[in-house]
Amino acid sequence: MDARDSGDRLASDEVEDLRRNLQEQEQQHLRLLADFENFRRRIAREQEGAREEGRRDTLLRLLPVLDTLERALATGSTDMAFYEGVAATHRLFLAALRELGVEPIESEGRRFDPNAHEAVATVPSEGVEPGTVAHEVRRGWRLGDELLRAAQVVVAAHPEVPEPWR
Amino acid sequence: MDARDSGDRLASDEVEDLRRNLQEQEQQHLRLLADFENFRRRIAREQEGAREEGRRDTLLRLLPVLDTLERALATGSTDMAFYEGVAATHRLFLAALRELGVEPIESEGRRFDPNAHEAVATVPSEGVEPGTVAHEVRRGWRLGDELLRAAQVVVAAHPEVPEPWR
Repeated sequence: MDARDSGDRLASDEVEDLRRNLQEQEQQHLRLLADFENFRRRIAREQEGAREEGRRDTLLRLLPVLDTLERALATGSTDMAFYEGVAATHRLFLAALRELGVEPIESEGRRFDPNAHEAVATVPSEGVEPGTVAHEVRRGWRLGDELLRAAQVVVAAHPEVPEPWR
Repeated sequence: MDARDSGDRLASDEVEDLRRNLQEQEQQHLRLLADFENFRRRIAREQEGAREEGRRDTLLRLLPVLDTLERALATGSTDMAFYEGVAATHRLFLAALRELGVEPIESEGRRFDPNAHEAVATVPSEGVEPGTVAHEVRRGWRLGDELLRAAQVVVAAHPEVPEPWR
């Protein structure tokens, strides 16, 4: 083997090394590009999630205000002019919630739905189909397709259901 | 030039090309890494921004409900029991806003502040320093350190200020 042969060998080894490095580098780059793209997609979903979370936090804090307003209205008043002003506030509250995509959950008379209702008690069903909501204790709300706050309900149970389940 | 020389030339050209490609590829990769890192940082800030936006949207829709409730309360009532129930709702509303980081902007008697106040009219200042807020028309609110809704105010003006500025 002369110097030239050995030179050829070295050159072709180097070419081999470089080709391998280049290939590895290219693959690494493609993986990073794919990671980046996945990250972008995930983040777009998460951005919407964060906005939704901000909405939910705020709404959950303010729904008890509506509950209290409704309890006040339920007692009625002897001052009709003032009552009407408060009733108008209540309608405005419901309209604002609707505009925000917040809708009440139907409960009374409906079949108990664990995805929307939270059973706080049961009553023996009398004239009502067991498993239907006999009474709503606290209204439930959806935000778009998602549950915002479960309705607290009293469920009609079979009269023969043992004590703990009645 | 024999075949071997030309072979050497080709090999060393290829090595050159490969080295250059590899270097370019490495630099491209480093740029992508830096882009990715910048994107991550920017996105972390934007996530917080999106959450805040969700809060702001919701609050801005619900503040008019508070305005209406306050207007109703301001009229007073002959039915004290009912009035008290509504006043309790109002206190709960303010407490919920406070918990959400929403605080009222002080206006009346303060110096007009274009970052917090929106002048809807001026009145000739009588006994009041010109440039102070004479009257608040609609309350303003801050969310944390940010303006949520400007206060609409009537500003006291110099009596000698020309018509359009009075």
